[in-house]
Amino acid sequence: MSPEGYLAAERRRVDAALRRYLPAPGKVTPTVRRAMVYSLFPGGKRIRPILAIASCRAAEGRVEDVLPLAAAIEMIHTYSLIHDDLPALDNDDLRRGRATSHRMFGEAMAILAGDALLTHAFEVAAIHPGALRCAARKVRAIGLLARAAGVTGMIGGQVMDLEAEGRRCSLATLIRIHRGKTGALMRAAVVIGGVMAEDGEGSLQALERYGDAVGLAFQIIDDILDLEGSSDRLGKTAGKDLRDRKATFPALLGVAASRRRAEAAADRAVAAIRPLGRRAGPLAAIARFIVRRTS
Amino acid sequence: MSPEGYLAAERRRVDAALRRYLPAPGKVTPTVRRAMVYSLFPGGKRIRPILAIASCRAAEGRVEDVLPLAAAIEMIHTYSLIHDDLPALDNDDLRRGRATSHRMFGEAMAILAGDALLTHAFEVAAIHPGALRCAARKVRAIGLLARAAGVTGMIGGQVMDLEAEGRRCSLATLIRIHRGKTGALMRAAVVIGGVMAEDGEGSLQALERYGDAVGLAFQIIDDILDLEGSSDRLGKTAGKDLRDRKATFPALLGVAASRRRAEAAADRAVAAIRPLGRRAGPLAAIARFIVRRTS
Repeated sequence: MSPEGYLAAERRRVDAALRRYLPAPGKVTPTVRRAMVYSLFPGGKRIRPILAIASCRAAEGRVEDVLPLAAAIEMIHTYSLIHDDLPALDNDDLRRGRATSHRMFGEAMAILAGDALLTHAFEVAAIHPGALRCAARKVRAIGLLARAAGVTGMIGGQVMDLEAEGRRCSLATLIRIHRGKTGALMRAAVVIGGVMAEDGEGSLQALERYGDAVGLAFQIIDDILDLEGSSDRLGKTAGKDLRDRKATFPALLGVAASRRRAEAAADRAVAAIRPLGRRAGPLAAIARFIVRRTS
Repeated sequence: MSPEGYLAAERRRVDAALRRYLPAPGKVTPTVRRAMVYSLFPGGKRIRPILAIASCRAAEGRVEDVLPLAAAIEMIHTYSLIHDDLPALDNDDLRRGRATSHRMFGEAMAILAGDALLTHAFEVAAIHPGALRCAARKVRAIGLLARAAGVTGMIGGQVMDLEAEGRRCSLATLIRIHRGKTGALMRAAVVIGGVMAEDGEGSLQALERYGDAVGLAFQIIDDILDLEGSSDRLGKTAGKDLRDRKATFPALLGVAASRRRAEAAADRAVAAIRPLGRRAGPLAAIARFIVRRTS
């Protein structure tokens, strides 16, 4: 299968899981469920949950064991977009080609829908599949997920980003911000895949290195696309980083050097998982795809 | 020990746990940690974590097994107050006798500090004590906690409340709103206490009934205090329900009938745990305290 075909098939799998794990329609107030669904679907590339699944397989685990965690990761990613777009934060009107949640449902509901997705992620992670199966691995994965999403990870990066806005910022600071904002959750997706594999322990070091490198490559390309892409293709406001005077890789290093850096990171990612052999093939393909993508 | 002495001692225990479980100062951006600490301390009555601890003991469990969950519950309660107070929601300036988080740190930081406390709660619940001890009970407790805090619980109640504002509202609707907004997390605190006790299974039904009744009693008294109390004593804006034309028990039933209803709920709570014998004494004392309190 081509990498594109593989990614499309995995995307459908992730979408089906997300639908299955949403709260049942009759059980919750319709508005908030509508707002959750609106931001979750059609959704973006689903790169994080696809990474978690591919990583679990690379560690010889079973897809059904990692699927709830993979869905939880995408719910957390989605909540972070809803809250980032709020007027008090990035104040953005466009996301994934449509009006942002607060433009669509009002600010109060957008705040609550974000809170709901974040909370529901942990419910899904804890209760599926079954309450007690692979409990020890699940507790460990939930701890990793919360840590990656929290103040030493994603929220930490978000806060640093907020405080760096409009200021000159060194490459070291930029890397720290990105490692938090995007890197932590992406790395956690990969590591959680390994943790949820029954005998994944031996693969974890390789997966951690892969996760680090792939997160960095992804963010550098994101910066380049924000600069060079059109809002149409990206489905979000392009050129936003410049407008908000945010530090980015192309702003600090230039586009060509940034792209080389992303390619080097993808090479490191591919090298890191070489010891896992053929079953890590999809992970290698994802790393290549990440630097090649145009949206 | 007097009930007041007992509650004060438990409060100190909870405060110490909350401090211990916060992210270490050197590891996170100072601003967001400052905002988390600001809303967590000095804090309110700590009634939810105290309920969880008392319930775990009533089910013959060990305090150290439930303490991380108890702290997580208080962090989730605190995040919900920060987000509720935001301009887009209740738009309140005063909480626990001080400026609300967004008045103190700005709206962006208040949103992020709330997100951070919610996320950190699940990290604390998952990683303490040790990663693997009592994993099955922990996964179950985390699932209950997320469900109680989510769209079928606290957030659901919050959404119903938002949508009912300014409208006439039946007693049945009011009870449904309260069961979500306050009842769900309070009930979960009690049930989680039983779940975290090694042999708590046999006590769970009694604890569930107790948790339901005590949550209702608490909320009715809250409504009465909002109407009759002063902002000074409550540490939050009194009379807010009237101002926002919110449905409350005293508005629908009058103060005297509301108080009788709260007392009847406390009686039901005490009756529910009678089968647990002497070790449930503190739970009974808490139920009595809840209807007697003046702030």
